[in-house]
Amino acid sequence: MRATLHQLEQTIRQRRDADPAASYVARLTAKGRAKIAQKVGEEAVETVIAAMSDDRPGAVGESADLLFHLLVLLADLDISLDAVLDELDRREGVSGIAEKAARPQD
Amino acid sequence: MRATLHQLEQTIRQRRDADPAASYVARLTAKGRAKIAQKVGEEAVETVIAAMSDDRPGAVGESADLLFHLLVLLADLDISLDAVLDELDRREGVSGIAEKAARPQD
Amino acid sequence: MRATLHQLEQTIRQRRDADPAASYVARLTAKGRAKIAQKVGEEAVETVIAAMSDDRPGAVGESADLLFHLLVLLADLDISLDAVLDELDRREGVSGIAEKAARPQD
Amino acid sequence: MRATLHQLEQTIRQRRDADPAASYVARLTAKGRAKIAQKVGEEAVETVIAAMSDDRPGAVGESADLLFHLLVLLADLDISLDAVLDELDRREGVSGIAEKAARPQD
Repeated sequence: MRATLHQLEQTIRQRRDADPAASYVARLTAKGRAKIAQKVGEEAVETVIAAMSDDRPGAVGESADLLFHLLVLLADLDISLDAVLDELDRREGVSGIAEKAARPQD
Repeated sequence: MRATLHQLEQTIRQRRDADPAASYVARLTAKGRAKIAQKVGEEAVETVIAAMSDDRPGAVGESADLLFHLLVLLADLDISLDAVLDELDRREGVSGIAEKAARPQD
Repeated sequence: MRATLHQLEQTIRQRRDADPAASYVARLTAKGRAKIAQKVGEEAVETVIAAMSDDRPGAVGESADLLFHLLVLLADLDISLDAVLDELDRREGVSGIAEKAARPQD
Repeated sequence: MRATLHQLEQTIRQRRDADPAASYVARLTAKGRAKIAQKVGEEAVETVIAAMSDDRPGAVGESADLLFHLLVLLADLDISLDAVLDELDRREGVSGIAEKAARPQD
């Protein structure tokens, strides 16, 4: 069965307090928010480069890494995935097409 | 009802071919992959900065922007969200804890 | 005559306190460090994308933007360009080749 | 005596063809442009995070890393540092203040 981001969010929150020797999430969390944020930035750079290289398997892997580390960062900020999805719904819901059309044309 | 990323993925794929005058996704898509990838990188930078500023509302908004543009980029690469979730499941599934523990301790 | 980074550093430091209506540096500085850092991150993303697109004129322009905003950020941190050049000299000086060779082969 | 970026540019260009076992520049260059560009993006992220952490020694070190890898990327694109400095001069020269004032106030 396919993983959901909500399941992954739960797993990450449980691992935060796990033994750092047994859990990457616990080790990264122990290093502090700057290191978690750094990973988000780095995985985004790698996603960008895979996309620009037209490397589709690479883009799948880097996107997975980016989502994973974004969830670790959100957990560190005590922000739920649902809070982000609610924000997306607010922006992209019924009124979304008109709203997006109004974005500056830069 | 809360938006799901799968619904957003569908909406984005439908808008890709919409009238650019009426759809931000269509306008961004028309500019080409480099511009889409640029937005992913920029929103990741803004997420990092919001997190480092301990700006939780900002981090919610920037994370939403990052997820949105990541889905636009995946659509442009013709990669499904499910392909990314399958990759996450492969990494973070039953054997996930041991696998993560084996990551280099950098 | 060609600009030097030291001349640009001086100009930037002078403009920091200029009238924001007349100076981009003053306007950006007034927005605070997060906005300056954001510009450094964004220009780096654009440099990466120009390089991956093999867009050499674009890479020249984005590299110029990146250097410019890095100098604005260093000024905001009250770090001199010379402090960065000294660090580069320390790493890349007479003993530099051996030092670099010792970097991990990741 | 202080290193200059022009000296560093020369050193980097010489090392590109050196023995990868003895030179970090040669090793990185051999991995291809995507890996060089990735380093530029990553060092920019680390510079941003050091700045946001008000970590001045860290910002010196990360800025040095960023400049170093930017020069490696420019060499890979066969773009001279002077071409970038000329572009900076064009933008920031005598007419620079007015030009910058004209930038959008976003």
